[in-house]
Amino acid sequence: MSENISVLGLGLMGSALAGALLSAGHRVTVWNRTPARAEPLAARGAAVAATPGEAVAASPLVIACLLDHASVREVLDGVELRGRVLANLTTGRPAEARESASWATARGADHVSGGIMAVPQMIAGPGALILYSGERAAFDRHEQALAALAEPRWVGADPGMAPLLDLAMLTGMYGQIAGGLAAAALVRSAKYPLTEFTEDLLVPWLNAMAAQQPGWAAAMEAGDHRTGVSNLEINRAGLRNLVTAFAEQGVRADLLLPLQAIVERRVARGLGHEGLSGLVLELEEGA
Amino acid sequence: MSENISVLGLGLMGSALAGALLSAGHRVTVWNRTPARAEPLAARGAAVAATPGEAVAASPLVIACLLDHASVREVLDGVELRGRVLANLTTGRPAEARESASWATARGADHVSGGIMAVPQMIAGPGALILYSGERAAFDRHEQALAALAEPRWVGADPGMAPLLDLAMLTGMYGQIAGGLAAAALVRSAKYPLTEFTEDLLVPWLNAMAAQQPGWAAAMEAGDHRTGVSNLEINRAGLRNLVTAFAEQGVRADLLLPLQAIVERRVARGLGHEGLSGLVLELEEGA
Repeated sequence: MSENISVLGLGLMGSALAGALLSAGHRVTVWNRTPARAEPLAARGAAVAATPGEAVAASPLVIACLLDHASVREVLDGVELRGRVLANLTTGRPAEARESASWATARGADHVSGGIMAVPQMIAGPGALILYSGERAAFDRHEQALAALAEPRWVGADPGMAPLLDLAMLTGMYGQIAGGLAAAALVRSAKYPLTEFTEDLLVPWLNAMAAQQPGWAAAMEAGDHRTGVSNLEINRAGLRNLVTAFAEQGVRADLLLPLQAIVERRVARGLGHEGLSGLVLELEEGA
Repeated sequence: MSENISVLGLGLMGSALAGALLSAGHRVTVWNRTPARAEPLAARGAAVAATPGEAVAASPLVIACLLDHASVREVLDGVELRGRVLANLTTGRPAEARESASWATARGADHVSGGIMAVPQMIAGPGALILYSGERAAFDRHEQALAALAEPRWVGADPGMAPLLDLAMLTGMYGQIAGGLAAAALVRSAKYPLTEFTEDLLVPWLNAMAAQQPGWAAAMEAGDHRTGVSNLEINRAGLRNLVTAFAEQGVRADLLLPLQAIVERRVARGLGHEGLSGLVLELEEGA
């Protein structure tokens, strides 16, 4: 079903979102501070609003993808928002999304936060995912239209939840990237073909090891960190060995050191018989 | 084809290896410093050698899985090794494996180093992998028998290569684990169901992101760190945002800080337009 949808902000991501909506046959109104960014979308049939107010007036669903949350409130300052759904896909932290939600709600809008798990090139393609949280009824009303952007996933009523889980996924990714970089440095030090190592050995191994994570999550939820496989004492020996090998190969082990530090700390506390899942407590205690 | 194979060292891993060889129908001779560890294998048909020399004399292929490389040399001190293939699956660093290889070669043995990418429970099961390097002809001669333990993968003539790639795979795994722990702490701080997050969001995302690693490896090999997607400046902003969010949620960002530090350093060098692949150089320069 074709809907009227407005998009505020035409950076790379905003333009990709507006383009996906046009491709899906929606009537799209766009606004951008620099009007020239709207031209490629106008050529594809988008209406170009002269002001944010004009864009908001044109559609019941308004998607905002601006520089930051402060920009959202600045751009929409004084604009009539009553009865509008504001799908705020602007990147930000949980606390900022909650602040924007309060601000929009106070002005009569239904606020839905989004966390986009994709780069602009991936929008409307396979694997792209957008997390949403906030006003459930507003999300439900527009879920079908939002599905044109990426797979939509509802994660709860807290407007901070979508950005929080977005950040948690990025956190997992950055850990994986850090591990990949350190592994690459070690492999390069031995002059082994790096692409071969990465494709044939590292990636299948990472995929197999990622499959262990739900088990650790369940252990954390249960608060039961016993293990029948590799306890912290074994991991401590493994990490010490690794750090020594990095030194012997002349590469820096920096990226591994904080994990080693919390493993050492936990074993020193007499918890060497526990599994890796208990390490999460070291990130929470006294933080 | 049934072979005579000896196994030195019956810890959890050595016992799993000997058990897999028995299951595959080989004639297995075992030796362990503490003879009681041999009993379950003897009950399954293994011959128990009274000394390491007796075990080595029994088979052309001798698999060693001992505490460390010093133990290998100590246990085999004075034993006639001429014409034997020593498949040394003892955990150790590249430099240690090279030392053991020289030692064994000087005594007339063909040394093959192994890096076991599995826990004992996985031996002879799907997904278990053992990397081998050293004397290629010796490996080829016994590859079929070794395949009973785990998928055998040849990685080169350098006896240090199998342990090195083993350590590099563990490095990648530890990075992924560190990211998973930090992500879990963030998710727990918001009281979102952790197992649901891990299964539905994190693991598919990690698998999708792992698929980016070969592209970065190719960029590192080409020395071409340009990117059309997320440059270091964008990642710097993302990491700063993440670290702030950790503080706001009351959890420690320790595990992310060294990655952030090398991203900051590289942007400060004027390389903010480059992609993540260039970060590997920060682990090599001045190391």
